[in-house]
Amino acid sequence: MPRAPEELRALVEEYLDELVLTPELGTLAEPMRHALGGKRVRPVLCLASGEAVGADVESILPAAAAVELVHSFSLVHDDLPALDDDAERRGRPSVWAAFGEATAILAGDALLAEAIRLALSYPGTEVARELVGATLGMIGGQQLDLEGTHDDLATLHGLKTGALFSASVMCGLWAAGLPASAHQPWRAFAAELGLLFQIVDDILDGDGYVLEVGPDQARRLADDAGERAQERLVAIPAETSTLAEIVTGLVARTS
Amino acid sequence: MPRAPEELRALVEEYLDELVLTPELGTLAEPMRHALGGKRVRPVLCLASGEAVGADVESILPAAAAVELVHSFSLVHDDLPALDDDAERRGRPSVWAAFGEATAILAGDALLAEAIRLALSYPGTEVARELVGATLGMIGGQQLDLEGTHDDLATLHGLKTGALFSASVMCGLWAAGLPASAHQPWRAFAAELGLLFQIVDDILDGDGYVLEVGPDQARRLADDAGERAQERLVAIPAETSTLAEIVTGLVARTS
Repeated sequence: MPRAPEELRALVEEYLDELVLTPELGTLAEPMRHALGGKRVRPVLCLASGEAVGADVESILPAAAAVELVHSFSLVHDDLPALDDDAERRGRPSVWAAFGEATAILAGDALLAEAIRLALSYPGTEVARELVGATLGMIGGQQLDLEGTHDDLATLHGLKTGALFSASVMCGLWAAGLPASAHQPWRAFAAELGLLFQIVDDILDGDGYVLEVGPDQARRLADDAGERAQERLVAIPAETSTLAEIVTGLVARTS
Repeated sequence: MPRAPEELRALVEEYLDELVLTPELGTLAEPMRHALGGKRVRPVLCLASGEAVGADVESILPAAAAVELVHSFSLVHDDLPALDDDAERRGRPSVWAAFGEATAILAGDALLAEAIRLALSYPGTEVARELVGATLGMIGGQQLDLEGTHDDLATLHGLKTGALFSASVMCGLWAAGLPASAHQPWRAFAAELGLLFQIVDDILDGDGYVLEVGPDQARRLADDAGERAQERLVAIPAETSTLAEIVTGLVARTS
């Protein structure tokens, strides 16, 4: 019987709370922990994917935390005055607003490096390679956004959001030891999630897709992405009921 | 017959010139390449260490380049207005001065991620783990410097400079496949190099150790560190003549 998303989320919270950061980082621990708030969508997806192919959830926690740290790294740097200039994040001061710009730059760097360290706690290089590949895509997407020269939102979001969503699933599978030969239907599923998440984000914020195609069409695009994700799941020979519940939650979420 | 430092430097230059960056990084390639100037001390050390234990130098090049990219990442972020506020680096505009702050932040992130990608091109996790460990120390050292609360220069430089110097040697050995059981005398050698490099840097810049102990004593400290490094080398059962030449060069360098 796979665990419900809420149980997985509680495990992630506990793991992150107790995560021992590299001692040499010294006082960066505080801004790093400040940065680690959020809904845990990506690490829960990672745990559910690993559990779906039969892994002990505990063994997937370092990979799940690594994904969340990369997500946090990107938010800390994106919030900086030179980039999005956001002084608030989740109703609290963003890292630079609370700790200064210099510390925010270093705390972001440290979150990325710690994420890789966690990904490297597995015997093989696969989890780390998957995560670094997604990180490179995400950074490229942020640069594309900065330039404002992207042709379409789908390409931009594919890099900025999709790459790490996809890696959340795939890192869970690599951590579980699923051989590469069994990855293809999983990649097809994972590829739908970033778009689904981003469209719903835009609906909740009233920007992006909503501005481009209107609110009704954006809702339809979100529902379609959710349906495609569920169809892809059905094609996977694994215990995917928790993942189906997560997809349903992503389509219906209101925050 | 091991290659001379100059030959190794030429190989590094060629490899970096031809290095294919992740395509998704798009226009970040230009600021990243802009950042990749320098003396190549660390990658040459990496190649010489790998060759000393019998590896084909070509096989060590990805590790050597990874070390250099981490070094460049740290310079790009350290030069930012919020940190050291250096508009010049090696007689040219620093990355933020030439490309803007936002792009410099992202280019630094991308250099770190590309470095890890290169380190992960080896079959095992060791090169990447060594490099990430050093990166975490370096980031912690930068934070310590920012706070200005460090008790002594040796601790600060051990993190800011020593960690990556040490990793330059050790990544060369891991890439060469030298088993961990043979690492101990190498770590003793590697531990001397960061201090040696930093004292000579301070002598050339007239700051740091020169301000703390005076120019004559700083020179003596540099010579002592060079002698200790040579003594450590003698204790290593490998073909270390090129490394001895590099150490001599580090003691005597004038730029």
